[in-house]
Amino acid sequence: MDTPALVVDLAVVERNIAAFQALADAAGLAARPHVKTHKIPALAQMQVAAGAVGITCQKIGEAEVMAEAGLADILLTYNILGAEKLARLRALAGRCRLSVTCDNAPVAQGLSAAFADAPAPLEVLVECDTGAGRCGVQSPAAALALAQEIDALPGLAFGGLMTYPPMAEAGAVDAWLAEARDLCLAAGLACPRISTGGTPNLGDLSAFATATEHRAGTYVYNDRSLIARGACRAEDCAAVVMATVVSRPSPARAILDAGSKALSSDLLGLEGFGLIREAPGARIASLSEEHAIVDLSGTDWQPQIGAVVSIIPNHVCVVSNLFPAVTLVHPDGRREEVPVAARGRLR
Amino acid sequence: MDTPALVVDLAVVERNIAAFQALADAAGLAARPHVKTHKIPALAQMQVAAGAVGITCQKIGEAEVMAEAGLADILLTYNILGAEKLARLRALAGRCRLSVTCDNAPVAQGLSAAFADAPAPLEVLVECDTGAGRCGVQSPAAALALAQEIDALPGLAFGGLMTYPPMAEAGAVDAWLAEARDLCLAAGLACPRISTGGTPNLGDLSAFATATEHRAGTYVYNDRSLIARGACRAEDCAAVVMATVVSRPSPARAILDAGSKALSSDLLGLEGFGLIREAPGARIASLSEEHAIVDLSGTDWQPQIGAVVSIIPNHVCVVSNLFPAVTLVHPDGRREEVPVAARGRLR
Repeated sequence: MDTPALVVDLAVVERNIAAFQALADAAGLAARPHVKTHKIPALAQMQVAAGAVGITCQKIGEAEVMAEAGLADILLTYNILGAEKLARLRALAGRCRLSVTCDNAPVAQGLSAAFADAPAPLEVLVECDTGAGRCGVQSPAAALALAQEIDALPGLAFGGLMTYPPMAEAGAVDAWLAEARDLCLAAGLACPRISTGGTPNLGDLSAFATATEHRAGTYVYNDRSLIARGACRAEDCAAVVMATVVSRPSPARAILDAGSKALSSDLLGLEGFGLIREAPGARIASLSEEHAIVDLSGTDWQPQIGAVVSIIPNHVCVVSNLFPAVTLVHPDGRREEVPVAARGRLR
Repeated sequence: MDTPALVVDLAVVERNIAAFQALADAAGLAARPHVKTHKIPALAQMQVAAGAVGITCQKIGEAEVMAEAGLADILLTYNILGAEKLARLRALAGRCRLSVTCDNAPVAQGLSAAFADAPAPLEVLVECDTGAGRCGVQSPAAALALAQEIDALPGLAFGGLMTYPPMAEAGAVDAWLAEARDLCLAAGLACPRISTGGTPNLGDLSAFATATEHRAGTYVYNDRSLIARGACRAEDCAAVVMATVVSRPSPARAILDAGSKALSSDLLGLEGFGLIREAPGARIASLSEEHAIVDLSGTDWQPQIGAVVSIIPNHVCVVSNLFPAVTLVHPDGRREEVPVAARGRLR
């Protein structure tokens, strides 16, 4: 096998998709997978075919690729700003059911200016910071204030609430969202959609009693960080980076042809830059762009030059962004090269 | 400006190219820039026009792009293994003056099999581990042994020695190389080329008395890691990531639209994921794929939503690999979008 390569086991993908859909169904939540993990329209279509109500994208460029491939319902969870992006957003809204999120008034005003003369209003959800400390309004009262501003702006329709929640605090997140929703309802604003997310939260979706939909991305492939969190098993990891041993400078050192350009430098709190399935005791101690330096001092594994190994990456979403194409392995063993069509869409 | 964008100041690039060439000339070394930093044929051509003897690539895919653009002399500093890659290497050798490196017998034997019936032998340099602890033979005696094996194999010509040296230890590196060279010469093997490298070593190239050429990559753009090493000043950094403030959740927090997909997660031992030129006291505390979380607690800077900032990345080579195109700013102020043609060439 020519390496480095990103190889995806479709049987595991299918199992993972079915598992998320079943969890969402059981909790009475719509499933809205985040496509950032795979960035491949055909996999998004598998997710919709399994029952997802639509998909989530983080960039307009990703959403454009997905809409072009026929994905019909897209939530763009990002503050969109600037003339170029707003013009593209307006065009995109003509090609799918589009909704976006927003956490501040300047963004809402820009969206309104772009959609004031649109044939239909743009659905805008208020992004809420329920503890993750990234984007989002800081309190339920602030959520209400922004919802009212969106409701009053021409070209926009208030669509509800969205959060990227901290992990393992579903109860507090849900209380936050319930309070914001109740404030909206008391003010006469319908709050049709309440969107939560995160693969690590799939362990207990029932805790999100207020939510109406759940966004998850990484579950489709899973990765080493999710194994470490107890959110999946090694056999649930659908995507591995195949690499070749290109050098054996010493008994305690092997060099692989997958560096940070293939595995990324993401550690996510883990020790080492990935798990070599053939030698779990080997430690990927450091990466340069095209080399992995593997410390063999903790293992008896002594691979020969030319040996090919499979690595479960720490963070598979960023790995998808690094490979122009993946090798899909169908359940019947057939291999298919598929472009990662929405890769590198930075805008 | 539509963001995130990678913007390159060509006047600074020209100055950096001239500076490396002058240092190499003064030390009596051929300059062989590593194109991994920019991955753009037009910039490689500027380096050759300034006096470089040729270029360095790390992957066959990069070398193919550069040969296609007319770069005539390419050193591929990688152990090449496997049928697909060897076939491409053989084809590439017909399109430029090609040399490669090797640190072990199985790789040498594979190269020999691919070039045994070639019209001209492939020039192979022995890669030496002079202390950096990545690839390379472990002693001058091992360098001689591999040189003799290469010399004896059909289709190959022993071309000399190559090292990716540890930084700031030029004296020890040079002593290692001199010993290996003298062993080769004593055994009747000419050792025409001795190739060292690294931008941090540009401070004293004269220490490499044994070397005949120097490879450097990062100098062409420079980055925050090189500022921290004292190898350049902020004004020598030619490439910045432009980003927009998309959210201001709280007085101490700003969110930028450049995450790990734009800046990479490389820390290189630094604090924070890049330097915001407009606010050096602001700390890029963490990245997710599409967001930078900026901690403003150490600065009075309070940017408005929509403000655009310029970030000197920690490690610019990996940033080049993340952007489909760069915006080149010519000395006359003209802007030009140029594809990063050799980006993402993993094989």
